[in-house]
Order: sequence, then structure tokens, then C-alpha cells
Amino acid sequence: MKVLVIGSTGTIGRAVAEALSGRHEVIAASRSRAPHRVDIADRASIEALFGKVGKVGHVVSCAGTARFKPLEQLGDEDFAASLGNKLMGQVNLARIAASFVEDGGSITLTGGILARKPMPGSTAISLVNAGLEGFVRAAALELPRRIRINLVSPPWVDETLRKLGMDPAGGMAAAAVARAYVESVEGSRTGQTIEPGG
Amino acid sequence: MKVLVIGSTGTIGRAVAEALSGRHEVIAASRSRAPHRVDIADRASIEALFGKVGKVGHVVSCAGTARFKPLEQLGDEDFAASLGNKLMGQVNLARIAASFVEDGGSITLTGGILARKPMPGSTAISLVNAGLEGFVRAAALELPRRIRINLVSPPWVDETLRKLGMDPAGGMAAAAVARAYVESVEGSRTGQTIEPGG
Repeated sequence: MKVLVIGSTGTIGRAVAEALSGRHEVIAASRSRAPHRVDIADRASIEALFGKVGKVGHVVSCAGTARFKPLEQLGDEDFAASLGNKLMGQVNLARIAASFVEDGGSITLTGGILARKPMPGSTAISLVNAGLEGFVRAAALELPRRIRINLVSPPWVDETLRKLGMDPAGGMAAAAVARAYVESVEGSRTGQTIEPGG
Repeated sequence: MKVLVIGSTGTIGRAVAEALSGRHEVIAASRSRAPHRVDIADRASIEALFGKVGKVGHVVSCAGTARFKPLEQLGDEDFAASLGNKLMGQVNLARIAASFVEDGGSITLTGGILARKPMPGSTAISLVNAGLEGFVRAAALELPRRIRINLVSPPWVDETLRKLGMDPAGGMAAAAVARAYVESVEGSRTGQTIEPGG
């Protein structure tokens, strides 16, 4: 079955594409390096992607950026960029994907642990990730043709912590995080926030 | 102590202003009917309000609109209006209020039960209410001068159900809902989503 993976060149996206590729035909898309290009902050770009790719069994998004900054430095533009990209980019992806996912297929979006366990600097990200949880819970009630939708809420990822020069001890390997995406695609859950390892 | 109540002419706002008025000096603001006028969707309007009102002990928002519509009819404009009003309107209110609330004071925003218990038609509202929960959890870690921030998440309100011609049996009286706002203002909680009666 075709699985469109958006954000396939990121730390988590690469692991997800790898985990799915054994049993599915992975169609890889990302902003700048994958075979298919898409900018989720741009609705027309999402529509153009589906125009090229056509019907798919499942859509997985590991894409979306939001701004990490002390609250007093977070400006209007930081909130607008965070809402326009990781939040509404993925919401719009889901809304458009609903017409292209086959009957009984699935849509999986990416939130994150900062929704429920914030830290100083995470205000815009916590808002975005929590908003995605609410969106997925509600959208699951109305998607047509038995299409399921879930949010994976990754913890800190080993590889990311290493890149940031931080202690990877509290993190989870991207390959382990990827299992939650596979569960969302292949399982029967819908409307849920899936915490890897949870 | 001065408490600025925004949305003071709505069903919940009226009950909150009433509940607070015995022990506090309530300053009432709303979009069209209260002594002070403010449109939370307009940042300049919020700034103008605080310019007139000045320092206050506490700020309570019972304001904000979001669109209730079947998912397939929810358009880009519906999401933009919902995010611009109830979500970012209250986020901007909190960000601006942080400079006008006295040391140890509080900011209380309004979310709603549809964040966690969605229903068909609630997708935009569920996103907005859940996003506000994430915002408040995170912002509480960074607000200066011991300022607290909470979200009250009201259930369906008797008076609203009656207005909609629905059975008020499952609802809670606005006066009971108002107690959660009083608890947020007068108690010591911060970063929390307060469910009235919970």
C-alpha cells in the first residue's frame, strides 16, 4: 500500500520511512531534499503534491516547525510562523489528504511532548502541539470513508539531543519513535495522541 | 483589588463579574456593551484598553469566538477566524496583560470542554481550546513577578443550552461555572486547566 511520508528527510521522518518501507511503498516528500517537494505552510504546495501523487493508502507527516524562544522574546511573527507551519500546515495537510486517502486509510500527524510537559521557551510549541491533539481528537469523528487520524507525540529524540550537543540519556532513539507511526498506520486507533513507548 | 473582566456581558462573563464583585473592584470590558470596549482579535484594541485601565490585580477573559461547523464545511476563513479570535486573541491578551498585572496577580483565560470531549462540528473549537491548554501550561513557567495563569474549561452551560433550545439537563449553571474563575483568581494554582465542578 502507498504511504506518503512528508518530512521524510528529518531525523524522525527518515526513521519512519525506513520502518514503513519493508511492507509498504513509501512515497517520500519534504521541503527541499526528497523526491517530492512540498512546503506544508503553503496550501497550494500541498495541493500540488497530491495532484502529482494521487490516491494513497496512508499519509504520515513528520513535518512542521515552531519557534522555541523565551516568552518575552516570542513576537507576533513567531506565533504566526508557528501556527502557520506546524499547526495549520498539518491541519491543512489532513483536510486535503481526506480527499486522497483511500477508504479505511489513515492520516498521522506529529505533535510532541512539550504539549504536556512544557519547559521555559516552549510556549509557542506547547500551544501548537496541544492544538494538534485537540484537532485530531475532533477530526476523527468526522473524517469520511473510515479514514483514521492520529497524532504521534514524540519525546526528545537521541539523535536530536546529540546534534544539539546535549546529553542523549533522556532521549529515545528515532527508530523506537518510528514504531508509534507504524502503529498509527497499521493499527485501528483513531483520534488518539500516541506517545512512543507509552 | 482591581479585576479586569473581559467578555463581561456574555453568559459566563456576567456570572463571573457578579461572583467577583463582592470582594473585588470589577472593571468590565466587552466588545460592544460594557463600560470599556475591547476586541481581543485586535491587538491594538487590547493595548488601548490597558492604556486606559492601567495596572490591575487580575485579568479574567471570558471572551473569544470560534466556529462550529461540520469539518467538510470548515473553510480556511473559519480556521483563521477561530485562531485569530478565541486562540490568539486570548494569547495576545495574556502577553500584553503580563506588563499590567501587579506582582503576584493572575491571568485567567477561557477554553472549553470540547478540547477533550469533541463532537461532530467542533474541530476548530477543539483545536483552539486544546491549544489554549498548552499555552497556559507553558506560559506559567515564564510569566514574571509571580504572575499566575490558568485556563477555565467550562462544560456546557444551562443558560446557553436553553438559548439554543436544547435540554439543559446536562449543563451547569453559569453561577457554578463562575466559581472556577474565582478559584483561579483567588487561589494559588498556575499553569492549570480548571474544570468547573471537577
